[in-house]
Amino acid sequence: MKTFDKPAIIAALDLDLALRRIEEGFIAYSAGKVQVPPVQAFSFARANGDCCIKSAYLEGSDTFTVKLSTGFYDNPALGLASNDGLMLVLSACTGAPLALLADGGWLTAMRTALAGRIVAQLLAPGRVEAIGILGTGTQARLQLEQLMPVTGCRQVVVWGRSTAGLLGYRAFAEALGFAVRTVAEPKAVAEACNLIVCATPSREALLRHAWLQPGTHITAVGADAPGKQELEPALVASAQRIIVDSRVQCSQYGEVAHALKAGLIAQGQLSEIGAVLAGHAPGREHEGQLTLADLTGVAVQDAQIARCAFEALQG
Amino acid sequence: MKTFDKPAIIAALDLDLALRRIEEGFIAYSAGKVQVPPVQAFSFARANGDCCIKSAYLEGSDTFTVKLSTGFYDNPALGLASNDGLMLVLSACTGAPLALLADGGWLTAMRTALAGRIVAQLLAPGRVEAIGILGTGTQARLQLEQLMPVTGCRQVVVWGRSTAGLLGYRAFAEALGFAVRTVAEPKAVAEACNLIVCATPSREALLRHAWLQPGTHITAVGADAPGKQELEPALVASAQRIIVDSRVQCSQYGEVAHALKAGLIAQGQLSEIGAVLAGHAPGREHEGQLTLADLTGVAVQDAQIARCAFEALQG
Repeated sequence: MKTFDKPAIIAALDLDLALRRIEEGFIAYSAGKVQVPPVQAFSFARANGDCCIKSAYLEGSDTFTVKLSTGFYDNPALGLASNDGLMLVLSACTGAPLALLADGGWLTAMRTALAGRIVAQLLAPGRVEAIGILGTGTQARLQLEQLMPVTGCRQVVVWGRSTAGLLGYRAFAEALGFAVRTVAEPKAVAEACNLIVCATPSREALLRHAWLQPGTHITAVGADAPGKQELEPALVASAQRIIVDSRVQCSQYGEVAHALKAGLIAQGQLSEIGAVLAGHAPGREHEGQLTLADLTGVAVQDAQIARCAFEALQG
Repeated sequence: MKTFDKPAIIAALDLDLALRRIEEGFIAYSAGKVQVPPVQAFSFARANGDCCIKSAYLEGSDTFTVKLSTGFYDNPALGLASNDGLMLVLSACTGAPLALLADGGWLTAMRTALAGRIVAQLLAPGRVEAIGILGTGTQARLQLEQLMPVTGCRQVVVWGRSTAGLLGYRAFAEALGFAVRTVAEPKAVAEACNLIVCATPSREALLRHAWLQPGTHITAVGADAPGKQELEPALVASAQRIIVDSRVQCSQYGEVAHALKAGLIAQGQLSEIGAVLAGHAPGREHEGQLTLADLTGVAVQDAQIARCAFEALQG
């Protein structure tokens, strides 16, 4: 088994190919052609940490993938990154471990950003006034980068809790060619933007329905575990199209989980990305629609991006 | 993260310390002090293979473990071993991956054999007439080795499906100092032995109650997945003490699962190894008792043996 480090993985990965592989993965997942065992989750109360293990096998592939990702939120005080992780690629023909991708969580961040691009392609309004971003971290940055191929709009309005975070984001986005406005309230993002990405670890609703413009699309990527929430359930309920990466997972802990629990929406209103990509469910139908994509992260994304990286690294 | 190969792991592991750690692990597991997420299982129909991922964290430990084990049963035709595997040891303080134990499944085989020793210590009759072994593979060998500290008996009666397997086992056991008798039917094992280990991948009952001597102890390690079975359910029902590594797991797919499903025994008859070790449930009570230990393999065993190997390898 070979080990590859993060710089080697970043250098080798073809993002456009990874995007297509992830689209194929979503389609296969929604068609029931992916083995996705239950997520394994640990909680380390003493260390304020958690770990989750996501594994997947797309039927017919030569490989399958086991992904570990950790979040230890007191690490920064020790001079360490909060998030770490790795992926193992194994042969689906012999069981042999083939590669350890010591990506430190980069592939997970990237497959999440690529899912953001995929849903924006399906649901973003034709004319984007300004892109709105909640959050200033790695995912908030990757999501903006991945929206650049989807829209020509180069206006971004960003909200975050920390002034330092906002300053850092401004420098990052300006370097990409964006005109940047930082704001003190999520409300100001909602009022100025019709393509919004929520990428925070919030545990309470940040966006309210009353603030939104008609025809806005929202991608919510923060609610990847129980207890997390970025959107008011009434906002979720007011969306005219709701796309989810996984019905099962989003019903357990995504944004839609809160609205389902409150009885504001029904399971039948949820369409999976894979079903939309396959043409079995509609994406955006008209410019006036409020659309929502709820992304909790599915192991098939990991398997597909890992396979893509592994193939490239094999040369 | 450091990678250690099988020879280094074998050289470093102190088996007596591993035994104690696994006993501590069973006690903690039965006391509800171990996080054991659901097992992840894959099936690769085309390649006649499977993979399972078992992870555990014993509360208070500095590390936690994720274990992958694969079985690809057409591998021998390709000149490869059927079983492979590895364990990852991670920090429970920072989430950092600390070690990859590329043991090829050896640690799993050894923790299973050590569990066999633990239950034999608790349940074997005081006077062992002869040791009986069903199976001639790696686990059938390790189990015999691990019974040597438990009993002075050096008579072994072994049954297996293949003549070559029996010849190989004879040479192995004679080298350990055993007088060896190979037999053509499991019945002959039951009639001659009062300490029996079943270590086959059988999918049908091999042993029947009617053949057994009074006071026999049976350890069954083969039924580690749905569909596997080594004992007649009536034999399970006739045991006066039934010890299991995990009530939940054994009720799903262990030997006791078949007897539970048939309504021949009740959940209340099952005691966990950890409860017996902690003194909360009895082991063997008298020489006449028929006793049974059903081992399906619990992730806490992996976590404890991996931790033990990791600490030794760190020096």
